[in-house]
Amino acid sequence: MEQNAQLLREMAAKAGAETWEDRKKNQTPQCKFGEDGICCRICSMGPCRITPKASRGICGADAHAIAARNYVRFIAGGTAAHSDHGREIAHVLHVSSRDGNYIIKDEQKLLNLAREWGVATEGRDIYDIAHEVAEIGLMEYGKPFGTLRFLERATEERRKLWEELEIAPRAIDREIATVMHMTHMGCSADAEALVMQGLRTGMSDGWGGSMMGTEFSDILFGTPTPKETEADLGVLEKDMVNIIIHGHDPAMSEMIVAASNQSDLIEYAKENGARGINIAGLCCTGNEITMRHGVKIAGNFLQQEGAILTGAVELIVVDVQCIFPALGPLTKCFHTKFITTSEITRIPGSEFIKFEPIRALDQAREIVKMAIDNFKNRGSNICIPQSKQKAVVGYSCEAIIKRLDTVTNSHVDDLGTYKPLVECLESGVLRGAVGIVGCNNPKVRPDYSHIEIIKELLRNDIIVVATGCSAQAAAKAGLMQKEAKELCGAGLKRVCELADIPPVLHMGSCVDISRILMLVTGIAKAWNVDIPKLPIVGCAPEWMSEKAVSIANYVVATGIDTYLGIEPQVKGSSQMMELITEGTRKLVGAGYIINTDPNKLVASIIEGIEAKRAALGI
Amino acid sequence: MEQNAQLLREMAAKAGAETWEDRKKNQTPQCKFGEDGICCRICSMGPCRITPKASRGICGADAHAIAARNYVRFIAGGTAAHSDHGREIAHVLHVSSRDGNYIIKDEQKLLNLAREWGVATEGRDIYDIAHEVAEIGLMEYGKPFGTLRFLERATEERRKLWEELEIAPRAIDREIATVMHMTHMGCSADAEALVMQGLRTGMSDGWGGSMMGTEFSDILFGTPTPKETEADLGVLEKDMVNIIIHGHDPAMSEMIVAASNQSDLIEYAKENGARGINIAGLCCTGNEITMRHGVKIAGNFLQQEGAILTGAVELIVVDVQCIFPALGPLTKCFHTKFITTSEITRIPGSEFIKFEPIRALDQAREIVKMAIDNFKNRGSNICIPQSKQKAVVGYSCEAIIKRLDTVTNSHVDDLGTYKPLVECLESGVLRGAVGIVGCNNPKVRPDYSHIEIIKELLRNDIIVVATGCSAQAAAKAGLMQKEAKELCGAGLKRVCELADIPPVLHMGSCVDISRILMLVTGIAKAWNVDIPKLPIVGCAPEWMSEKAVSIANYVVATGIDTYLGIEPQVKGSSQMMELITEGTRKLVGAGYIINTDPNKLVASIIEGIEAKRAALGI
Repeated sequence: MEQNAQLLREMAAKAGAETWEDRKKNQTPQCKFGEDGICCRICSMGPCRITPKASRGICGADAHAIAARNYVRFIAGGTAAHSDHGREIAHVLHVSSRDGNYIIKDEQKLLNLAREWGVATEGRDIYDIAHEVAEIGLMEYGKPFGTLRFLERATEERRKLWEELEIAPRAIDREIATVMHMTHMGCSADAEALVMQGLRTGMSDGWGGSMMGTEFSDILFGTPTPKETEADLGVLEKDMVNIIIHGHDPAMSEMIVAASNQSDLIEYAKENGARGINIAGLCCTGNEITMRHGVKIAGNFLQQEGAILTGAVELIVVDVQCIFPALGPLTKCFHTKFITTSEITRIPGSEFIKFEPIRALDQAREIVKMAIDNFKNRGSNICIPQSKQKAVVGYSCEAIIKRLDTVTNSHVDDLGTYKPLVECLESGVLRGAVGIVGCNNPKVRPDYSHIEIIKELLRNDIIVVATGCSAQAAAKAGLMQKEAKELCGAGLKRVCELADIPPVLHMGSCVDISRILMLVTGIAKAWNVDIPKLPIVGCAPEWMSEKAVSIANYVVATGIDTYLGIEPQVKGSSQMMELITEGTRKLVGAGYIINTDPNKLVASIIEGIEAKRAALGI
Repeated sequence: MEQNAQLLREMAAKAGAETWEDRKKNQTPQCKFGEDGICCRICSMGPCRITPKASRGICGADAHAIAARNYVRFIAGGTAAHSDHGREIAHVLHVSSRDGNYIIKDEQKLLNLAREWGVATEGRDIYDIAHEVAEIGLMEYGKPFGTLRFLERATEERRKLWEELEIAPRAIDREIATVMHMTHMGCSADAEALVMQGLRTGMSDGWGGSMMGTEFSDILFGTPTPKETEADLGVLEKDMVNIIIHGHDPAMSEMIVAASNQSDLIEYAKENGARGINIAGLCCTGNEITMRHGVKIAGNFLQQEGAILTGAVELIVVDVQCIFPALGPLTKCFHTKFITTSEITRIPGSEFIKFEPIRALDQAREIVKMAIDNFKNRGSNICIPQSKQKAVVGYSCEAIIKRLDTVTNSHVDDLGTYKPLVECLESGVLRGAVGIVGCNNPKVRPDYSHIEIIKELLRNDIIVVATGCSAQAAAKAGLMQKEAKELCGAGLKRVCELADIPPVLHMGSCVDISRILMLVTGIAKAWNVDIPKLPIVGCAPEWMSEKAVSIANYVVATGIDTYLGIEPQVKGSSQMMELITEGTRKLVGAGYIINTDPNKLVASIIEGIEAKRAALGI
């Protein structure tokens, strides 16, 4: 790892390019007021900040009010990002057609959802059903009355609790608007009220926009099944046309993958002196296409510059979120073309090709052709790190259940349930399960916390599911190979062997944490145990984005303790620190546990899981 | 003024209370990075800031990207606040009923809107119509397809331009969510794209939520007509039960006013030793009830603490926005009860009575009774400043047209038009018209800029319409008396005499700037001149809140130059400074003109108006 990073640093120096490591150095030390969440810029009387001589801002807002407002606006940003992604997919579903660019790939999943939402299916064209389902989905963003439909999927105890606490989310966009209103100058200054709205808003992501993103993506692009792939910058090919897909929304990247498989374009690449076309993914759009097509993983968040620095990337095409604006100037140091495709993500130094669902394949072909045409412009100075690892990916809930079915005694037990997993947990063969999710953050060494924590969990017979940059970190570390069972305790190793799975299951992109919600909910229902009592927790060791805090809120609201390796920026308020740790626990049965030392964090996870087991008497 | 302020400062010192003046001092100097808009706290890799050694944040965002993101999030906060207020009123309309707390007071306005929106009216119960109109209104917040209905009210040239520029807003909440998504880490870094989304979002306020707030409030509570009132802290009565209504949403305050007029409660006040019940308003909920009932104006934004410091306020009841959290501790220094009523605005140190439309009058009676019961607890140390001024308020568009009708030659001309006003402007009897709006801001001496600018405009035969804290400043300065004609140039004085109006017309609350949009649109249509060419501009001399920036954006998008006396926090980006001044002018025909010196600002307004006249050849 470090050797590769050093190579790429040398490439950057030669190219006169700046990287996040340089910028991090220039930004150090960072502003303490911001880090502690006690700087307020919500009106132009300010900025105000809490200091020893100033315990309140000009309006009278104290540290608790300021930190709480900043915190919930953070959640609103994350909910907006995830949910708007879901909305885009809903719009794509709405224009899907039998002879169009986007067809229905998982009819059964669509029919199931149609039935769940009371849409007539009998004797109807599947596309009519799809369009009606899409419209209902779109209404979830703005319906004037009622709460979200997907809440019906939750356990009864959760539904009841959310109603009682008045945190069952209404329309998704409304919750975002409510946050922005509550945090406006002269509105809420009560930290607890703001934290409650934060939970509700986060839920409109997890049980709303994100879940819609996952469902509709599966319907359109297929529900993931296990498949083999490779991960890390070594997947770039010296003698092929390398195209990096980066971002989150799979609609465009699906078409790029489709175009890259078309024989005329492959032939065109060969005519231009390349061995073929090599697609590799970064961040979550990379996760989406690896889950469904086994497309290789170039890397995660903090490797986006590294990919360009290899000098071997003809073109990087991005959709939304987590795209460094630094790619603008960086790609100019190389022959690499930088294509933006979403109006949500306009970046100086990129070429903008506005994604249009009805002609997306043509656009994708155009982009792939641009990459091929650019192959001849590649410089002589190429540096592709050798490191890569094999991985098995594609563990949707449906795929996990299929694996579980293989270890079920079909003479005695029902197929298609989480019961075998529950039995493993109950018996102690598996001590627990942890969802490891989230980003990289320069505040810690990239991937280090992810990997240290995962390895220690595996040694302790705790199975791991992963999404997002965390999943990519695990794949790069070889933890998604079936051979990784050798790193596991005896119980987990046996489970891996019997079910023929790796000990870390790739469940998809960050919006696919909705799959983890459904997995945990399924286990709770099969076990008949409330979610907060299950030996199952979540962990975001290196989180960075607003989306991560939105996720943390819906995970906590769902009753799942969430372990954070980066501190939320509320330290300047004792009340907020109490609210996000113990305060929410009193209300929804879960909260944050925060520790910036990954060894201590994983120790507390194991301790937490064992305590839950003890409380269950198992 | 200054004398009163000194008296209240002494009251504060005696009571051991802190005021905004103390806190402003403690917050000085303010953070330059925040003031310049180049501090980024959008992800937890940061905070980052642009410095001589760091031209980019860790992700690579430069000063322009950072300032632009902060700026459009500011707009989103303002749009959310205004529009959510409109939504609340729509929900009240939705539960209005013939024998309920909320009835339809302006049936004609409802019928007009129903026809505009294609709602059947023939032979239907007015409440059925109201409920259907309310539902359509609520759908404007979340409809999945299409743009806002009220855009149809704009001039043809505006509608065409907005379509071309792709800034015609879609559903209101969606524009807010889009801002939050675009500004998420790794999304838009292009300042121009962000500024365009800022215009669109602002428009979803002015031509969406705010306009809905105004229309529905008029339907429910009556369209304002001219009435006399008084303004400034001197309206508090030593021997009466003083109740302050503060905030923005008129739904609750309407009921407080109704309750305070009920004879049994007046009798109860007398039994408790008071001469009666005295209601006085602060900020925009105060404007709403003065526009419709002539309720007295206690003051504007920076007087909220002053009102409490008189020691003569039994109770302050607030709804949403611009409420100092400082009122919590401050009211504890006196006998004053502090009641919050909205879930949007929860404030420590207040008693929370959750507003419920279906029993709002009962709740209001309860609150008024609490105030009466508290009269006996008033301390002996009372200090009510003597200053107050008479004012005529209530100039809705309908009321203005009625005044214009009185100067129309009904034998020759149509009644019910803005033509007489157009003729005054065209002939030069009036040189122009200015909407003066917005807040107070401790960055300048309260009200000073408002008043200096207004007086200079009047001297120059420029008629003024005002809303919000600006209107209250004008009322307190006596500029809303008809006698203020003596301060005007000869042309404006003559107009005031003929139409029997004061030279500064109170058009309502900040959401009622939608009235100004309709006024300017009406003038443009009557004159057949594009809005940017009209000798009409807007000015916010002392703006403070996010709402003000949302307003500024829809005003600019509507083609009206906007003069600002406080700098938007984007100075750290040359590109943003260009975009918000000249950049938008190239696109929508209007932009900001910024000057923190009120004398220079008003000189540039007059110069701008005269330039527009010259360009029109008049």
